[in-house]
Amino acid sequence: MSDKLAARQRFLDVFEGLVEELKEILISYKMPQEAIDWFVKNLDYNTPGGKLNRGLSVVDTYAILNKTTSDKLSDDEYKKVAILGWAIELLQAYFLVADDMMDQSKTRRGQPCWYLVEGVNNIAINDSFMLEGAIYVLLKKHFRNDSYYVDLLDLFHEVTFQTELGQLLDLVTADEEVVDLDKFSLDKHSFIVIFKTAYYSFYLPVALAMYMSGISNEQDLKQVRDILIPLGEYFQIQDDYLDCFGTPEQIGKIGTDIKDNKCSWVVNQALLHATPEQRKLLDENYGKKDDVSEQKCKDLFHEMGIEKIYHDYEESIVAKLRQQIDQIDESRGLKKDVLTAFLAKVYKRSK
Amino acid sequence: MSDKLAARQRFLDVFEGLVEELKEILISYKMPQEAIDWFVKNLDYNTPGGKLNRGLSVVDTYAILNKTTSDKLSDDEYKKVAILGWAIELLQAYFLVADDMMDQSKTRRGQPCWYLVEGVNNIAINDSFMLEGAIYVLLKKHFRNDSYYVDLLDLFHEVTFQTELGQLLDLVTADEEVVDLDKFSLDKHSFIVIFKTAYYSFYLPVALAMYMSGISNEQDLKQVRDILIPLGEYFQIQDDYLDCFGTPEQIGKIGTDIKDNKCSWVVNQALLHATPEQRKLLDENYGKKDDVSEQKCKDLFHEMGIEKIYHDYEESIVAKLRQQIDQIDESRGLKKDVLTAFLAKVYKRSK
Repeated sequence: MSDKLAARQRFLDVFEGLVEELKEILISYKMPQEAIDWFVKNLDYNTPGGKLNRGLSVVDTYAILNKTTSDKLSDDEYKKVAILGWAIELLQAYFLVADDMMDQSKTRRGQPCWYLVEGVNNIAINDSFMLEGAIYVLLKKHFRNDSYYVDLLDLFHEVTFQTELGQLLDLVTADEEVVDLDKFSLDKHSFIVIFKTAYYSFYLPVALAMYMSGISNEQDLKQVRDILIPLGEYFQIQDDYLDCFGTPEQIGKIGTDIKDNKCSWVVNQALLHATPEQRKLLDENYGKKDDVSEQKCKDLFHEMGIEKIYHDYEESIVAKLRQQIDQIDESRGLKKDVLTAFLAKVYKRSK
Repeated sequence: MSDKLAARQRFLDVFEGLVEELKEILISYKMPQEAIDWFVKNLDYNTPGGKLNRGLSVVDTYAILNKTTSDKLSDDEYKKVAILGWAIELLQAYFLVADDMMDQSKTRRGQPCWYLVEGVNNIAINDSFMLEGAIYVLLKKHFRNDSYYVDLLDLFHEVTFQTELGQLLDLVTADEEVVDLDKFSLDKHSFIVIFKTAYYSFYLPVALAMYMSGISNEQDLKQVRDILIPLGEYFQIQDDYLDCFGTPEQIGKIGTDIKDNKCSWVVNQALLHATPEQRKLLDENYGKKDDVSEQKCKDLFHEMGIEKIYHDYEESIVAKLRQQIDQIDESRGLKKDVLTAFLAKVYKRSK
């Protein structure tokens, strides 16, 4: 087994134990068996199964901050930091179960979306609530006596609300019924990706590891936020770019942003530079469900040189982030390596 | 204006200010205007408009514990305790927006359910999340520096999770597609009503007022919990009874529990005492959508003397609760009047 697989397996093993703990709590409430079974199935179906990048990065960040590697952590210490990782994965599960219903998606991680599973339907709404609820049950059980417990709660609340704000703007901007490109703008795109993705996927894992490591001075949290938020924005811009210009092999799926009328970085760049004729072509073809309209948009994006605009953006943001990382003040215990590791993972995706 | 109306108005005025505060926070995030407008509409449409019993009872309980009446509280003190009241109303709004989607209800508080409002649909899921999110934004803003802040957070988390557990059991028990009375039992009914209703509607308001009053010893919280949980159960049993036996004038709506295959106290009592023939009649008619089947069930319930069983239960639980209240230890500042006020409100509903 490779080191990476072993690390993943150790992380997954913690989850199994957490499901048992949650089950015990329901048993202690004298919850009837069929509802316990349902909750366990909800947890198992929706929480693991993804790439686990967010959860694993809490563990990795914690190891770097404590000048070790995750495989050298004792079982108790490992479990504790892994619980913070699983708390993010539960938060993500909460969002994804609901997002799939709102987007009427069909599949997620290679299986039917939870709400489409036989017998589930709209119960999935309450199930999403319970995935979020599980976060606070676990945090209370394992962190109630730590001095930073209240900081963990505040952080989860703040990031949850920010993600919901991003999702709200995304939903009111990308109405699939009424296509209106006037609603799009790069500013809105930036708000959506920062709030909907960057806070919980990039800032949250690092901030959690910092709290548990006792390196949580507001100056240090600000240092990492000032890097991780633009890094998260870059990650999502790259995602938008690959949805349009990546091959299915490269991205593991077929991009649908154009047909879905998504407020993507690509269309926003095109709107910024379009001549009146080009704008007309976009108005007539963006957000249409057929392949011909989609291809017309793709051809236009190519003709307008969006690839070059993207590559220029990428080189410039990466250079800027490297410079920022280089200037990090490590005097209170923060480590540049935490940020370098994140940047490397995103940058190499497109290489 | 009557005292009761004036009290309600003062409480509502606080909400207006809270909406402004939440709006300011979104503005500080540079949230685009259309999403701010949406959030404000979500708050206004879903939060006030009910009877506000839960929210107002935080204020009333606080006044009793502090040996005064709510109209004598200074504006600052009033606002602070009213925010806890509105936090419960937001929690309730979060549940109701979602419940209405899960039950496919049509109206709520005399207006269309939020998800049925033009342009909303499934965005209502994220809107429900944001109603919950608003609770923690407000608690942080107004209580972060209070010693009991972390207790408030733990309490909201615990009660939220309990309510979700109750809702889960209700959903997996009352499947409208497959009617199976074997799934029902008085134990399940008791679990559902205690978890889905009693914790957040009865225990939560009093516990919040106790924390803010500094009367929050675990012994005192247990004293009120031991009374308010059975009182909440009694309230819901009364609700189930009135749904079947109350007149539309009495309950302000037409009861639909029989047609909706609800795991109601009434049907559970009938199942407990039914002969094989009576059970057969129930199997054939309960949960059916037509008036004839419904009437057959009602006639059977009457024939079985469910009204008498209910009235006996009511007298016995009220006597028991009165006795418990009488034995409350007031030595640490808790007041029997808090509980007497709650019991009086529930008992007189049926008189």
